[in-house]
Amino acid sequence: MSAFFKKIALIGKHKNPDILAPLLSLANYLISRDFEVVLDQLTAAHIGKIDYPVLTLEEIGAQADLAVVLGGDGTMLNIARILAPFNVPLVGVNQGRLGFLTDLTVDTMIETLGAMLDGQFVTEQRMLLSAEVLRNEICVFRALAFNDVVVHRGISSGMIEFEVGINNEYVYSLRSDGLIVATPTGSTAYALSAGGPILHPGLDLIELVPVCPHTLSNRPIVVAPDASIEIKVRYTTETKIYADSHSWFDLGEHDKIVVRRFSETVKLLHSVDHSFYRMLREKLGWSGIPQKNH
Amino acid sequence: MSAFFKKIALIGKHKNPDILAPLLSLANYLISRDFEVVLDQLTAAHIGKIDYPVLTLEEIGAQADLAVVLGGDGTMLNIARILAPFNVPLVGVNQGRLGFLTDLTVDTMIETLGAMLDGQFVTEQRMLLSAEVLRNEICVFRALAFNDVVVHRGISSGMIEFEVGINNEYVYSLRSDGLIVATPTGSTAYALSAGGPILHPGLDLIELVPVCPHTLSNRPIVVAPDASIEIKVRYTTETKIYADSHSWFDLGEHDKIVVRRFSETVKLLHSVDHSFYRMLREKLGWSGIPQKNH
Amino acid sequence: MSAFFKKIALIGKHKNPDILAPLLSLANYLISRDFEVVLDQLTAAHIGKIDYPVLTLEEIGAQADLAVVLGGDGTMLNIARILAPFNVPLVGVNQGRLGFLTDLTVDTMIETLGAMLDGQFVTEQRMLLSAEVLRNEICVFRALAFNDVVVHRGISSGMIEFEVGINNEYVYSLRSDGLIVATPTGSTAYALSAGGPILHPGLDLIELVPVCPHTLSNRPIVVAPDASIEIKVRYTTETKIYADSHSWFDLGEHDKIVVRRFSETVKLLHSVDHSFYRMLREKLGWSGIPQKNH
Amino acid sequence: MSAFFKKIALIGKHKNPDILAPLLSLANYLISRDFEVVLDQLTAAHIGKIDYPVLTLEEIGAQADLAVVLGGDGTMLNIARILAPFNVPLVGVNQGRLGFLTDLTVDTMIETLGAMLDGQFVTEQRMLLSAEVLRNEICVFRALAFNDVVVHRGISSGMIEFEVGINNEYVYSLRSDGLIVATPTGSTAYALSAGGPILHPGLDLIELVPVCPHTLSNRPIVVAPDASIEIKVRYTTETKIYADSHSWFDLGEHDKIVVRRFSETVKLLHSVDHSFYRMLREKLGWSGIPQKNH
Repeated sequence: MSAFFKKIALIGKHKNPDILAPLLSLANYLISRDFEVVLDQLTAAHIGKIDYPVLTLEEIGAQADLAVVLGGDGTMLNIARILAPFNVPLVGVNQGRLGFLTDLTVDTMIETLGAMLDGQFVTEQRMLLSAEVLRNEICVFRALAFNDVVVHRGISSGMIEFEVGINNEYVYSLRSDGLIVATPTGSTAYALSAGGPILHPGLDLIELVPVCPHTLSNRPIVVAPDASIEIKVRYTTETKIYADSHSWFDLGEHDKIVVRRFSETVKLLHSVDHSFYRMLREKLGWSGIPQKNH
Repeated sequence: MSAFFKKIALIGKHKNPDILAPLLSLANYLISRDFEVVLDQLTAAHIGKIDYPVLTLEEIGAQADLAVVLGGDGTMLNIARILAPFNVPLVGVNQGRLGFLTDLTVDTMIETLGAMLDGQFVTEQRMLLSAEVLRNEICVFRALAFNDVVVHRGISSGMIEFEVGINNEYVYSLRSDGLIVATPTGSTAYALSAGGPILHPGLDLIELVPVCPHTLSNRPIVVAPDASIEIKVRYTTETKIYADSHSWFDLGEHDKIVVRRFSETVKLLHSVDHSFYRMLREKLGWSGIPQKNH
Repeated sequence: MSAFFKKIALIGKHKNPDILAPLLSLANYLISRDFEVVLDQLTAAHIGKIDYPVLTLEEIGAQADLAVVLGGDGTMLNIARILAPFNVPLVGVNQGRLGFLTDLTVDTMIETLGAMLDGQFVTEQRMLLSAEVLRNEICVFRALAFNDVVVHRGISSGMIEFEVGINNEYVYSLRSDGLIVATPTGSTAYALSAGGPILHPGLDLIELVPVCPHTLSNRPIVVAPDASIEIKVRYTTETKIYADSHSWFDLGEHDKIVVRRFSETVKLLHSVDHSFYRMLREKLGWSGIPQKNH
Repeated sequence: MSAFFKKIALIGKHKNPDILAPLLSLANYLISRDFEVVLDQLTAAHIGKIDYPVLTLEEIGAQADLAVVLGGDGTMLNIARILAPFNVPLVGVNQGRLGFLTDLTVDTMIETLGAMLDGQFVTEQRMLLSAEVLRNEICVFRALAFNDVVVHRGISSGMIEFEVGINNEYVYSLRSDGLIVATPTGSTAYALSAGGPILHPGLDLIELVPVCPHTLSNRPIVVAPDASIEIKVRYTTETKIYADSHSWFDLGEHDKIVVRRFSETVKLLHSVDHSFYRMLREKLGWSGIPQKNH
């Protein structure tokens, strides 16, 4: 048992059979240490006979002291958005290569998680974004994003054009493939591919990163976390808004999108030797090895 | 009349009423100088009573010594692709701001074109690309492109992944929003927004520009005009191929795209004081005026 | 007179005769409104007969309620660094094009400053950086920077290599032309040319922007204002450290540079209709006018 | 012996003792196959007793049928510039990681070179650049470059400004850290770090890549190999011109630099399974392995 946690929820990547063996191994370990173990409902649906109570994610949010997520960063994004309002801390375990959000591996999870359950962990608060689409002043779509809110032309034949405002002040008109509004967590995801900077995940900030902007002098902008980002779409045939590449919505020509910081945060638990910079070096290949003929 | 041209075709931007007055003014001028004037069929459909012979674009290609296109660069792209096989030279007149392809303005077209008809012009050959989509070794789509052939994820929720080969040699696997295969003409269009270099339009070259590549070390590559670019799509839900943002086609998971130089070129006529570098300075804002606090 | 300010210091760009007429015109205006006017010593040295008290910058810092700087952003950077410890607010007037830091123009300064002196102003706190060079644990160079601290190879024939740490944690080894450590103020200066993001000037943040990094996946990183940035130089022949392109120092192979936030801030006064985003649009050419043939 | 080569010159990296063992091993192998072996004079100066004729590089150029260079890409650049006028083909052997120019490794050189000497090789012609500095119309500096000609501010405190022309036509005024004029060979060196595209080495092209340009819309330009690039320096305190980071010269304010294609080429020999694209994948880390949480 542990002075820090009593009831621990296990959540696996949806419809992934490979996650079952490590998940059950982890459950056995936790039981052997006298923790209460509960299983996520969707995860449990893929296991035959189950020895543990099965809860919905909302029930997990209400009851669990810790949620361990087995899967990739995509699974972690999805679970984190749902559990954020409940303030339950999350640990991510990755089966394959380490992820930015899933920084334990199946191979060493028993050892690392064991030490974390004894109190050897650090807690990190990560901000989320909330996006709303207003049509004739009525909200027609609402979503949370842990990584980013993206407005992107779909299969339309031309670039889209939109006006961007911050806190009711006009910022610019943008013709581009799209615009990414990202959290520090999302700054190492799609925004990085589009030329955005890396924001340290311990910061509360919002970055705006244009995707293939027509005006070549356009650049990513980093603004305060309390900024209200307003995006009005012009001249488009098939533009969509995406939240974490997970949920999306078809935008019309006079829709107004408002992106703001969400009131709750995601609480991530890391082992004490976790290092964001080491993760960057490993995942981005910053080996320091000379690469060119100069 | 002119030692260089006899029959001149006038082609206007489709469904644009503003083009009629300058078009008729130009026709009158040409008649006054004893040129034969013919009108494009689609252009003529928007004029009430017509004093000139009306031809299809194919007939114009077969008969005209020169085609004058009134519209923007988009119109010019469309007409150039259709007329390229006929070897008829093109002059572009823009109503608004100068375009890269439409380098005469309505205001000065009589004077400038007048001198060009007297022989004061330079001719430029521009290469085109031909794209084919092969499904089970059968060609299911074929298109010409003057600017670029683009493979891009549509409204799919994730990046697409594809393998790129050149002349049957494997080059790389790319996870990205898309890939642009551009001519020098297209190097100042979408490819420029995506980070590609400017290729002098007098060159015969093909550039490959990834759009938001996942692997951050990926870079644009410039290859020889006789290269055969092969693209195999993997893991996609809704990817499309576009030719000049004009025609497109839905790609399936095992489709193979082959992009090659087209056998014919576009023949552009410019006035003798035309300058590609001045165009770049004007259109890209290379004013040389200091812009930052350094 | 004014409820906000009594004694106002006027400071002109060093050795610039064009600044004298507007400076004296401004002095007359202030006298007419019963403000006390004092002149910076170096500025006064270029005026023949002087009717105002002449003070050093240190005396201005100790006595003045407001300092008005006539010159460009470079002059403003220099004065701001010197006056920062004294907490005297600054207003910048530019003779030519507006600057990011000098947002009044000579043409409208009487009117704009007049309203500001009546209380119609907003105050902005801007952070500074402090840099130290340690050689064998002894500090051999120390400087303040308002824009940036830059470590750059000088005339050496190859790239430099250095190790970067943050808060005593190893971040990466970098082979490059150099590294820029910038404030939000500096994010629109050299760092922007090197590919860094724009940081809103109201934020307290530090950005690290590599200059032409050898490892292509290297990217700008934004970190918290309380970060201690440590840079150890390796393999160099002629590397220098620069603070605001103003003061510099020759680095040796085992020197350690430490960059931290400076304890004091620069207090900038703006007119109430000042807009950072409008400044960006004007100075970076974000006109929204289409620029390319797409 | 071989139908293709008789006399083979061996050239080692200057002052590098590690090169001696593989160099002598290679010499023994060549002798065993009845080739004539000659040694470069500078290389030989570091070996005690020598069994082979010793020649200057100029004599090697005049007499040898093939030159094998042991070292890194830097050594290869230096030797290639000197031997280019003599038309002697070159093979590069790298002791450590493969280089773009040194594509044989010490470990497999006997086997690979053995097959090449039997005729299993491909020949590649690579262009060079020639740079001249004119001061009052007199040439005060002249150098060859295999990678690039670079004009760069040295330890000066501000950016430099210069005018760039091509074939006597004004192209742009540039305020920047510098300008790189690169060959396709150099496109994977410094120019790549500065944001330039990769030019296939089989092409004859020149690319202009600005280093940290002040005007954010400035972009790399690719021009024809017969272009004459003219650079006039303005407002500088300490600007230098570099050829391949090897030779340099201090520029004055009215100096004019002219960069042109050099009349001779470098002839590189590769094994038949050499692949430029594989080299790119290996050296730039284009592994295709997902790197980010998207």
